[in-house]
Amino acid sequence: MSVHSLPAPARDARAQLAARHAQVRAHSLALAAPLSAEDQCVQSMPDASPTKWHLAHTSWFFEAVVLAAHGSAYRPFDARWGHLFNSYYESLGSRHPRPQRGLLTRPALAEVHAYRAHVDEAVQELIASADAAAFGAAQPLIELGLQHEQQHQELILTDILHALWCNPLLPSYAAHEAPALRLAPSPLRWVDGPEGAVAIGHPGEGFAFDNETPRHRHWLQPYRIADRLVTCGEFAEFIADGGYRTPSLWLSDGWAQVQAQQWNAPQYWIAPRDPRADATHWQVFGLHGLRPLDAAAPVSHVSFYEAAAYAEWAGARLPTEAEWEAAAALPGLRELHGHAWQWTRSSYDPYPGYRPWSGAIGEYNGKFMVGQVVLRGSSLATPAGHARDSYRNFFPPGARWQFSGLRLAKDGHDD
Amino acid sequence: MSVHSLPAPARDARAQLAARHAQVRAHSLALAAPLSAEDQCVQSMPDASPTKWHLAHTSWFFEAVVLAAHGSAYRPFDARWGHLFNSYYESLGSRHPRPQRGLLTRPALAEVHAYRAHVDEAVQELIASADAAAFGAAQPLIELGLQHEQQHQELILTDILHALWCNPLLPSYAAHEAPALRLAPSPLRWVDGPEGAVAIGHPGEGFAFDNETPRHRHWLQPYRIADRLVTCGEFAEFIADGGYRTPSLWLSDGWAQVQAQQWNAPQYWIAPRDPRADATHWQVFGLHGLRPLDAAAPVSHVSFYEAAAYAEWAGARLPTEAEWEAAAALPGLRELHGHAWQWTRSSYDPYPGYRPWSGAIGEYNGKFMVGQVVLRGSSLATPAGHARDSYRNFFPPGARWQFSGLRLAKDGHDD
Amino acid sequence: MSVHSLPAPARDARAQLAARHAQVRAHSLALAAPLSAEDQCVQSMPDASPTKWHLAHTSWFFEAVVLAAHGSAYRPFDARWGHLFNSYYESLGSRHPRPQRGLLTRPALAEVHAYRAHVDEAVQELIASADAAAFGAAQPLIELGLQHEQQHQELILTDILHALWCNPLLPSYAAHEAPALRLAPSPLRWVDGPEGAVAIGHPGEGFAFDNETPRHRHWLQPYRIADRLVTCGEFAEFIADGGYRTPSLWLSDGWAQVQAQQWNAPQYWIAPRDPRADATHWQVFGLHGLRPLDAAAPVSHVSFYEAAAYAEWAGARLPTEAEWEAAAALPGLRELHGHAWQWTRSSYDPYPGYRPWSGAIGEYNGKFMVGQVVLRGSSLATPAGHARDSYRNFFPPGARWQFSGLRLAKDGHDD
Amino acid sequence: MSVHSLPAPARDARAQLAARHAQVRAHSLALAAPLSAEDQCVQSMPDASPTKWHLAHTSWFFEAVVLAAHGSAYRPFDARWGHLFNSYYESLGSRHPRPQRGLLTRPALAEVHAYRAHVDEAVQELIASADAAAFGAAQPLIELGLQHEQQHQELILTDILHALWCNPLLPSYAAHEAPALRLAPSPLRWVDGPEGAVAIGHPGEGFAFDNETPRHRHWLQPYRIADRLVTCGEFAEFIADGGYRTPSLWLSDGWAQVQAQQWNAPQYWIAPRDPRADATHWQVFGLHGLRPLDAAAPVSHVSFYEAAAYAEWAGARLPTEAEWEAAAALPGLRELHGHAWQWTRSSYDPYPGYRPWSGAIGEYNGKFMVGQVVLRGSSLATPAGHARDSYRNFFPPGARWQFSGLRLAKDGHDD
Repeated sequence: MSVHSLPAPARDARAQLAARHAQVRAHSLALAAPLSAEDQCVQSMPDASPTKWHLAHTSWFFEAVVLAAHGSAYRPFDARWGHLFNSYYESLGSRHPRPQRGLLTRPALAEVHAYRAHVDEAVQELIASADAAAFGAAQPLIELGLQHEQQHQELILTDILHALWCNPLLPSYAAHEAPALRLAPSPLRWVDGPEGAVAIGHPGEGFAFDNETPRHRHWLQPYRIADRLVTCGEFAEFIADGGYRTPSLWLSDGWAQVQAQQWNAPQYWIAPRDPRADATHWQVFGLHGLRPLDAAAPVSHVSFYEAAAYAEWAGARLPTEAEWEAAAALPGLRELHGHAWQWTRSSYDPYPGYRPWSGAIGEYNGKFMVGQVVLRGSSLATPAGHARDSYRNFFPPGARWQFSGLRLAKDGHDD
Repeated sequence: MSVHSLPAPARDARAQLAARHAQVRAHSLALAAPLSAEDQCVQSMPDASPTKWHLAHTSWFFEAVVLAAHGSAYRPFDARWGHLFNSYYESLGSRHPRPQRGLLTRPALAEVHAYRAHVDEAVQELIASADAAAFGAAQPLIELGLQHEQQHQELILTDILHALWCNPLLPSYAAHEAPALRLAPSPLRWVDGPEGAVAIGHPGEGFAFDNETPRHRHWLQPYRIADRLVTCGEFAEFIADGGYRTPSLWLSDGWAQVQAQQWNAPQYWIAPRDPRADATHWQVFGLHGLRPLDAAAPVSHVSFYEAAAYAEWAGARLPTEAEWEAAAALPGLRELHGHAWQWTRSSYDPYPGYRPWSGAIGEYNGKFMVGQVVLRGSSLATPAGHARDSYRNFFPPGARWQFSGLRLAKDGHDD
Repeated sequence: MSVHSLPAPARDARAQLAARHAQVRAHSLALAAPLSAEDQCVQSMPDASPTKWHLAHTSWFFEAVVLAAHGSAYRPFDARWGHLFNSYYESLGSRHPRPQRGLLTRPALAEVHAYRAHVDEAVQELIASADAAAFGAAQPLIELGLQHEQQHQELILTDILHALWCNPLLPSYAAHEAPALRLAPSPLRWVDGPEGAVAIGHPGEGFAFDNETPRHRHWLQPYRIADRLVTCGEFAEFIADGGYRTPSLWLSDGWAQVQAQQWNAPQYWIAPRDPRADATHWQVFGLHGLRPLDAAAPVSHVSFYEAAAYAEWAGARLPTEAEWEAAAALPGLRELHGHAWQWTRSSYDPYPGYRPWSGAIGEYNGKFMVGQVVLRGSSLATPAGHARDSYRNFFPPGARWQFSGLRLAKDGHDD
Repeated sequence: MSVHSLPAPARDARAQLAARHAQVRAHSLALAAPLSAEDQCVQSMPDASPTKWHLAHTSWFFEAVVLAAHGSAYRPFDARWGHLFNSYYESLGSRHPRPQRGLLTRPALAEVHAYRAHVDEAVQELIASADAAAFGAAQPLIELGLQHEQQHQELILTDILHALWCNPLLPSYAAHEAPALRLAPSPLRWVDGPEGAVAIGHPGEGFAFDNETPRHRHWLQPYRIADRLVTCGEFAEFIADGGYRTPSLWLSDGWAQVQAQQWNAPQYWIAPRDPRADATHWQVFGLHGLRPLDAAAPVSHVSFYEAAAYAEWAGARLPTEAEWEAAAALPGLRELHGHAWQWTRSSYDPYPGYRPWSGAIGEYNGKFMVGQVVLRGSSLATPAGHARDSYRNFFPPGARWQFSGLRLAKDGHDD
């Protein structure tokens, strides 16, 4: 069956997918564009990956998950690269050790660009030419490939920010913007959350990861939740009040981390030279380089441990992920998306009735469901269109290199 | 007010508490009795503590939590010992580093015995002589001290078992018993659990730790749960079927652990010399020394990772802690207590509305609520009278030196 | 005083130094030329450094040692770069941590090239224009800078070889040469060394490092020394004979290393697929990529431990550095230079009467005189004109990424 | 041949050996006598061993080296104990991991005492009853066993001192002595050493370890050597002058160690509370507990790094081992033996012509000849009769738990 014989709606679906595929793939290259080949090769810690590796891995994902199964005539760009760019899929073959991704000066960046073009051409060809059955089978996997690419787009930014931070010259990813016109932070308001049996999980329309399903009932006790995120200015007060020196505020593992790593501020904060300086006289390193702390901006780059300690200090707590999701549907809440991921007080456990996807992509989420903490919302680095209220992001409790902040909650309703 | 003027019920309460205190404290010494002073001093890994340290730490707990506040005339046995025997209470002063507890050859065991006697005398005096208000204030803390002592009684056994295992001579803690007359394991039956909004948490009568409260509603989807624990024989089949060599069965962190530690069986299993031997031809080291594997006995000394991998292999899953607790009230379930702690599929998060106890004992449970997994039930090493259906035990997912096994569950009701 | 007024010999000295400076500095760039910017940025282990770092560090050395003191009008290229490119000179300020040299994607390679040009111009200007006294003071330091640069030229090759080895694609530094026409190794001949009080150390004409001085007497007992290096074919026999599995051949630290690192061959050897294959069926990775083992070529990339174990297996021993140096003056010895550095049986201790140079360059050699072993000769990677019989190279006994081989010796004279 | 038919001199040799054996073996028990069974079981770091392990290992040495070969009717006390108490002899079978020696609560101390008695009886029987040939073969090995035992007698003291230091209670090994009547340290005098070709190594009468042989010529340049050891008071001045904060005084590895371990004084020194206190207001922990620093006593428990840094600070250097040994024969030198081992500026390399003993005892010394530094003399913990001028003690350059101090030397003769 030729693509011309498809009924009109399906043709629209193909055209839309082709356009979306082209747009998402191009955006990765746009994010990498300000970086030299050297910058794109570096790995600053095992948790982070080089930009070039992200560019190649996301292409490998299309190759291994979409083209290997559905692009019948597809020839891999280089059979040896599966070993290099497989991240963690045990069922898809051997893998280069994660901490050594920065050693891959070859393939060169230009070769990775050629790889992307090769894979993109094949995917576009598949979208254009597959028969209806094949397209039906491939379409959700292509969509998954694009969602996966978007996740790595955020990682491109978080990982290069960490790498630049490790350079004593503190180079910027992007040029300084004109300073934003910042007003004082708006006062925090408490919003009563829903209570009783609420429905949690992806409602079913549009894309969702397997870990957001199945939608199920969850019983909520009365609670209230802050309508905005904790700000840098507020967090600076926590520091000034001795927050990093007061063990009673911290979870045991968090306090051990504070001492072992000598944490005294969020990841990218540089202390004022004069320790008696005003609490806001910090400098903060970001994608636009080193800038004075913006007291009204949401705090970011804090670990779960720091988020929980701050909440304790503030006489509050972190919301559970169910509380967050239930409250997200209410009017009144601000900064749900696009500022900073929000640590919740929920470990990353499977939903009742959860089943991973079948096949290799079953390794996407399920096998990480222990030892991690859920974050909700999305950040300034999340690509447009990628955020969802039911989205379950997760990181170990000590991770700080993500754009991770917090929103407060309390037991009971507001008086 | 003299003790004679107390109303009869209170006198009974005092007498009962005095007797219970004497009995619990004596039991710790009884558990240590088969061990030499050398045995009682050794620490085989940072997670484990020497027997002597347990004997001293539980005494220090009474000193720091009960006598310091309520025994007005109390004089500490040795002011320097708080540093040695404080475990993890930041608010109660400095602490000897945990991995160096085995270096404490002094105080000698005989001195620790004298310490116990000194503290016991003071607690008995407090019970006997405190005025009603003081007794009322001290009584729950004394009870906490006893519950705490019972927890350490189990640790005395788990920790010495690990130490003896590290000795190439594999000495026994206790003499070989006459071999139990073992029947074949009874067939496993699936029991339907309750569904909908169930009440979870300690119902309020008798002692409970803060982490079991508050009692609250939890929504359960339909599920069924095994009426008995997984046996050693069943686990041996998992091994024989390549369970430890099949990454798709494992959580990601678990698989990393399997490879890094070269796990191929539960902690204390010794492989049959002939690899073609019958799956049950293992030997198992326990408190009674090295004995042939008892196929019908519940498997023990598995980590959460191994429990979860086994469940996956068996086409089932681990129950959540709420499912476990709700099912524990049903008729039909066996081996809830006294065999092996049962790993659940629940991370150790706070209950909705949870507040830690106030004061130093607020550090007892709450500060560990991240990165750990809940176990339910109790084990053969749990002292009599210490088990409870609402009890929330917790360990990191890789811990194997506890008496930890598993019970299976499945989604949906039995057909 | 203008350069034209200098007496002729001095003008020749200046012209010669200027030409030599230009030649040596250009050679570093020539060595880097086959490598991309990505290749030049990578650091594969803490012991190795990125090519770009070598290019910048050698320039910094001229800046810090020559220009800062003698180039009166010199302006540093970038004041912040001293921190980045100081290697280990405590007296010359702070340093970027050695294991993080690979994170320096900035300054970019092009900026480092500009840095080199800036420094070169200033040095050339100094050579051309300094008055006689200043030139006299600067000349030995410029010569030291060039000798230093030549040492790093060898490191550029050893370090990039290690980095390429860490890449599963095993890319080549340089294109495959036409295979050399190899004859069978010539038979090994034993040459009697001089005995009694011999003079050791640099005789005084031409450049020498401080560690080669003072020339002094050393008493030698009778010995004989092999006229050529141990070959790859001979080393393959050692392997085939179980050399890596026989503890009695090894020093204690060496045997521990063999077990911990699972060594079973020199660093860049890849085992034959069929373990029953002929002992020479290994493949060896080198600057020209992966090639079949050349049985007649000197073995390279062995640690001192392996060299000593081989010698034990061969019924011989390694020569001391004094034996090596005394024998180097004899006719008959082959492969002294230009093949592989030769491990000696001498720890790197100071010569009697040794005094380090004064000032910052006193840190060049003396502070490393413990825990290292001396190598003599030079390797295929040593720049032309840099080798000397009195040269004392040194590395820790476990180092294998250098071009390090061995020559045998025996007690007594040949019968 | 019966013992009665032996000629008189041999009978004396047997009687003397029997008496010496009994005396040396008893002395080990006497050294352990002040320690409880708990004390004797503890291992405070991998480098140190438990007292009980020393008691058993020295017995195993007689069993494995003497009785297995020469006591024809000898039955091992327990065949499984070879694994436990073999230290590092690859040729004598498997070994319990060194860092886990402290886990051996079994065999109990009483069993080790029985082991010693069993072995002693067999050795005494061998001495008394072996025929002349057998006695002749066994005698040097018995002597080696006694020398070995004496080495472990010193280690019993150094190791328990470290263990007691790790206990926050700082218990004493032995009761406080009456404070010695200390005079001011005598002024240091410089003694000219011999020069030219001197004979070094054991001259051949009486026992010596293989590493002291063969005696050979060594050429010495002119030097002078201090007639006494560096004192605690002098070392305190080095500290007060910023010795531990001045990198230019240190070898590179030493400075790294100072920073990593935050060294600021010898191993067992406790700083004065008031940092402005007089330089001698330190306290020093030793076998008699914590005592005020004795300014006139030789400094001890310094690493080679500290010794070398002190010498640099003092405008001197450490003597080489050949200088030390040649000077030891001169009149004038004090404190050669019985105070503190003296670090030399000599790495532990083999003597020219060195051959290890044959058989298992060939592993005694030779295999450690890399990465270690030679100490000469003997210490207050060295058993009477065990010291020798040709004795080559050796430890890694960072070791501080031995009784190790230093004596200064300088190039050239005194003016």
